Amino acid sequence: MAGGGDELKLLSTWFSPFGSRVKLALHLKGLSYAYVEEDLMNKSQLLLESNPVHKKVPVLFHRGKALCESMVIVDYIDEAFADAGPPLLPSDPYERAVARFWVAFIETKFVGPWCQLFEGSKTRAEKAEVLKQILSARTIMEGALAECFKGKPFFGGDGVGCVDIALGGLLVWVRASEVLFGVKFLDAAATPLLSAWAERFAALDAAKAALPDFGRVLEYAIKMRGAAAGAVAADN
Amino acid sequence: MAGGGDELKLLSTWFSPFGSRVKLALHLKGLSYAYVEEDLMNKSQLLLESNPVHKKVPVLFHRGKALCESMVIVDYIDEAFADAGPPLLPSDPYERAVARFWVAFIETKFVGPWCQLFEGSKTRAEKAEVLKQILSARTIMEGALAECFKGKPFFGGDGVGCVDIALGGLLVWVRASEVLFGVKFLDAAATPLLSAWAERFAALDAAKAALPDFGRVLEYAIKMRGAAAGAVAADN
Repeated sequence: MAGGGDELKLLSTWFSPFGSRVKLALHLKGLSYAYVEEDLMNKSQLLLESNPVHKKVPVLFHRGKALCESMVIVDYIDEAFADAGPPLLPSDPYERAVARFWVAFIETKFVGPWCQLFEGSKTRAEKAEVLKQILSARTIMEGALAECFKGKPFFGGDGVGCVDIALGGLLVWVRASEVLFGVKFLDAAATPLLSAWAERFAALDAAKAALPDFGRVLEYAIKMRGAAAGAVAADN
Repeated sequence: MAGGGDELKLLSTWFSPFGSRVKLALHLKGLSYAYVEEDLMNKSQLLLESNPVHKKVPVLFHRGKALCESMVIVDYIDEAFADAGPPLLPSDPYERAVARFWVAFIETKFVGPWCQLFEGSKTRAEKAEVLKQILSARTIMEGALAECFKGKPFFGGDGVGCVDIALGGLLVWVRASEVLFGVKFLDAAATPLLSAWAERFAALDAAKAALPDFGRVLEYAIKMRGAAAGAVAADN
């Protein structure tokens, strides 16, 4: 593996889907790294000093310099370690723009609404509306796999790219959210291409190494929902 | 100017701050382009077919291929026309990551909340909260100019870069919103560096060519607020 553990250090929490994205990129590039578990209930001085704007994980340190925001870090890994492992973005500028378009789509139409499902201030009716938006975004992603990505196994083509990482990092949480909210996001009948993609992605060595355990995430998500439900008991 | 008008075509509306970003990048790179004004009240077939996911401007066509999402387009212009004009992103991977971090910050902490100010479904109290968030984001940007960007004239250093474009494209709307909502976003006392940056930016030839007229935007924004106020009359 390229990249010594003293050169790369990842600060994250075991369940963070955004931390998973960074782990995926590191594993796909074959880079070794030190890992430091953060306690979000009692944030470390290292986190507060390295990400003073958002105070959020993941933070990747490379030769002591801190990098924040998961997809910014993925781009950085691809550029700073261009010679290690496969490229995570296509070389053609137009294809790069298409990949970036879908990463932005995943951030605004999928991640943004999904985070709202765990907000204590949202009512049940508001959450039902948010679930509708997510299902609509999922259907658009299914269409993207069929049309823009020409039926290739991954959004990145024959190999995994940044769109796969952006969506794949969330995969265990998508599965846990299906149980939690009683909604099927990935369904062999409604979204055959996306469901097949998810299976292919989960079978990758990098995914097995980077993604958290489903049962543990589900247990944690149930606790989170409980806390949120307590906070909105008066609204529901 | 490099780039023939038949090679590059921009579909936008005169007031769009996101269209302004693309215009800024094209002017900074010295690229000529054809311009087509879109009517958002009666969307064209060209818009619906070229941006079927969001159905929004701007769309840039390069040799007939459509590109969507303003900052994705700015990245594309920088990469596809690497030899034309100054680079819009630094060459060093770490500095590129810092620039992308701030572009993401502007999108999520400034543009996102600001769009909510024009949403008919928001109450007066909710809008006051949103204004607070924007003022807080503005203070963080002031700090960024002082610390991360080492007191250089632009976020891009001595020249304009993608962070300047991301924020500068919104400049006329920031000024109009100050009048509209009675809040000073840029203030020589509270945000001296950001205020000086805004003056330097507005004085650029590219800004003069790309940004819409302040009076016309203000007139349009007052109409928009009126429509939104009508929609929430019952809430306020």
